[in-house]
Amino acid sequence: MREISGGVIAAKGFRAAGIHAGVKATELPVGTGAQGGKKDLAMILSDVPCAAAGMFTTNRVKAAPIYVTKGHIAGGVCCGVVANSGNANACAPNSRLHAVEMCAAAAEETGLLPEDFAVASTGVIGQELNIRAILEAMPALTAALRADPSASDDAARAIMTTDTKKKEIAFEFTLGGKTVHAGGIAKGSGMIHPNMGTMLSFVTTDAAITPEMLGQMVHEVVPRTFNRVTVDGDTSTNDTFLVLANGMAGNETIACEGEDYDRLRAALMAVCTDLARKMAADGEGATRLVTCDVSGAQTEQQAEQLARAVAGSSLVKAAMFGADANWGRVLCAMGYSGAPFEPEQVDVAFRSCAGEVAVCRAGSALPFDEALAKTVLSQEEVVIAVTLHEGTAQAACWGCDLTYDYVKINGDYRS
Amino acid sequence: MREISGGVIAAKGFRAAGIHAGVKATELPVGTGAQGGKKDLAMILSDVPCAAAGMFTTNRVKAAPIYVTKGHIAGGVCCGVVANSGNANACAPNSRLHAVEMCAAAAEETGLLPEDFAVASTGVIGQELNIRAILEAMPALTAALRADPSASDDAARAIMTTDTKKKEIAFEFTLGGKTVHAGGIAKGSGMIHPNMGTMLSFVTTDAAITPEMLGQMVHEVVPRTFNRVTVDGDTSTNDTFLVLANGMAGNETIACEGEDYDRLRAALMAVCTDLARKMAADGEGATRLVTCDVSGAQTEQQAEQLARAVAGSSLVKAAMFGADANWGRVLCAMGYSGAPFEPEQVDVAFRSCAGEVAVCRAGSALPFDEALAKTVLSQEEVVIAVTLHEGTAQAACWGCDLTYDYVKINGDYRS
Repeated sequence: MREISGGVIAAKGFRAAGIHAGVKATELPVGTGAQGGKKDLAMILSDVPCAAAGMFTTNRVKAAPIYVTKGHIAGGVCCGVVANSGNANACAPNSRLHAVEMCAAAAEETGLLPEDFAVASTGVIGQELNIRAILEAMPALTAALRADPSASDDAARAIMTTDTKKKEIAFEFTLGGKTVHAGGIAKGSGMIHPNMGTMLSFVTTDAAITPEMLGQMVHEVVPRTFNRVTVDGDTSTNDTFLVLANGMAGNETIACEGEDYDRLRAALMAVCTDLARKMAADGEGATRLVTCDVSGAQTEQQAEQLARAVAGSSLVKAAMFGADANWGRVLCAMGYSGAPFEPEQVDVAFRSCAGEVAVCRAGSALPFDEALAKTVLSQEEVVIAVTLHEGTAQAACWGCDLTYDYVKINGDYRS
Repeated sequence: MREISGGVIAAKGFRAAGIHAGVKATELPVGTGAQGGKKDLAMILSDVPCAAAGMFTTNRVKAAPIYVTKGHIAGGVCCGVVANSGNANACAPNSRLHAVEMCAAAAEETGLLPEDFAVASTGVIGQELNIRAILEAMPALTAALRADPSASDDAARAIMTTDTKKKEIAFEFTLGGKTVHAGGIAKGSGMIHPNMGTMLSFVTTDAAITPEMLGQMVHEVVPRTFNRVTVDGDTSTNDTFLVLANGMAGNETIACEGEDYDRLRAALMAVCTDLARKMAADGEGATRLVTCDVSGAQTEQQAEQLARAVAGSSLVKAAMFGADANWGRVLCAMGYSGAPFEPEQVDVAFRSCAGEVAVCRAGSALPFDEALAKTVLSQEEVVIAVTLHEGTAQAACWGCDLTYDYVKINGDYRS
């Protein structure tokens, strides 16, 4: 398996586009005479129908596109997705109607059926979507569809809200001698921008697989990747993960578990892990990616529950911002995680490219070099390594630090 | 029932003291030649043995004083409490020993038994407690014991960490014709300073009540007061609530439910509500007290679960800091609270001394006056009022806004 360029168009038979429709305010660069504005409308389309599977927000308040998409992919088949940023199309007048209209307009321009499209939105909630801008832009959007890496780049940028970096990845590998591709784009972070639509991620592959097996795979991969990102504990109304598999790689269709299933799952795992880490690293206001890695656990679930509490603790996150080796907060967060463990057996260390510092052994303080700890914690990627000495299971969760900018970004996002 | 001064010494037969022992760093005012430093050691003592009941942190990682205090009050009797700030005496060498030594030294100076004392600590965890400073200061602490309002003030200040205001209250009322008093002091906030020992609160009353009925009362009052404060979702290793009832008011001992039980509970409820609100308002870096009030619920538990999620949401808290009427975040937090409710029926309004603004009706946006909303949300106390239209139950939770200063305070607290 090797990393390649192309994101969502790396797989054979997929095209993409991203343009400015006018949902986001237009910002013309002053004095340059340049036209246009921030991209806010994206489409991904397969040349042939795809096996489709997705996972969606668990929030009881769901945005309209979630209901529409669930209905459209219920049969396990989908041709493409249309998505906008700038407005979540949630808790606002006519939201269900507008989600349906987006699919209908996409269908009209592509000669397909509305039910062939998934739809997603991300942005502010409680304000009516500017559907007219989207409908008027649909011909330009479909005209821009192309199988070029710049098209995936455009689509990735068109779903961004407060993201500071586009999130895109693709891999090439083989299945039964055939060359296969899987790639994806994403925006936001699992729980970072809940009212902006939080996390959207679209993954494409030219592997051939049945909708049933694809659905199973998604339920194995998402809980170990996107669901292990925590930024502020808030879960959005719009979270959407969707994978489309069009079979154009020509491999024997995966219809049961086995070697091919495992290989494709490994590729999907790699794509989703990469996108999940990029989300955590680009958490609102974040200056570093913070991974909490819990090992020596009795079960993966126990390890995950502990890692999530540590990575999600406001106090741990603030300490990481200050590069402060305040390991007491790590133990404290583990203690209220709800997961059982023996505090008297826990080891804690901080690790990064600058080295490793052990700070706690068997639940009690270790003397350590404060200057080294400061250096270790000042890097862009920091790992909080926890060892339970209770078993052999392991899990990691990804988060980021809590900074002044998080407060700034969220103190007046709506206005 | 009327509010009076005196805090923990308002009740007959209680004395208190607070001094600087040297656990906190001494800070001498430059150029004044003044001696001493921040108060960090407190004692509250009853002239006669008290019925005692408490509630403690649910964190799996518990500080040593928690274990010692639980053992000492297991029989339902206690004479006083000794407490320090500046060090949590948790996850550090000799912590259990030092907690016992604090009680033993208090006993020696007062002619009581170590088991007659509860002990509590709050401050940084993982560093060994400066027990020598505490033991050497014990004679001065007991010598300073007095039944004067300034003594309660001293004790309240001696348990403060990053608190910016002391938290103290007392009430006078009658039970069966006898004048009775109940008062308390507190520091921190339920989940605000987890590694500083978070919340400590000590309440005294001269009411006569059996330990059994006092225990029942505590379990009725604490869940509706202190446990409804949420600041950052972190639960400390040191949370301690303790009430001492010495019976010196001379009322007929409360040994069962009835009118007297209800009156004393109402007083305890008033004391704890006042202290809980003061904690929330003094949340680290907070600029305002934010109450989420959920009414029209089917059950109190449902209302509390929803109110807690809203008051605890980082995004809601950041919006409150910015005085931004971003009600979508309120609905979103309700949606992931885990409590069932019908989003299509929910009304949301913001309320303060400056007025009230309805922003959402039946789950959908209402047009509202943005300028008025800004004014309403810019006050020191703000209420997020949610109506479910499902029943008649109600609950409120108290929190505060999320500010730059929270990040600043917690980014480098330990150093």
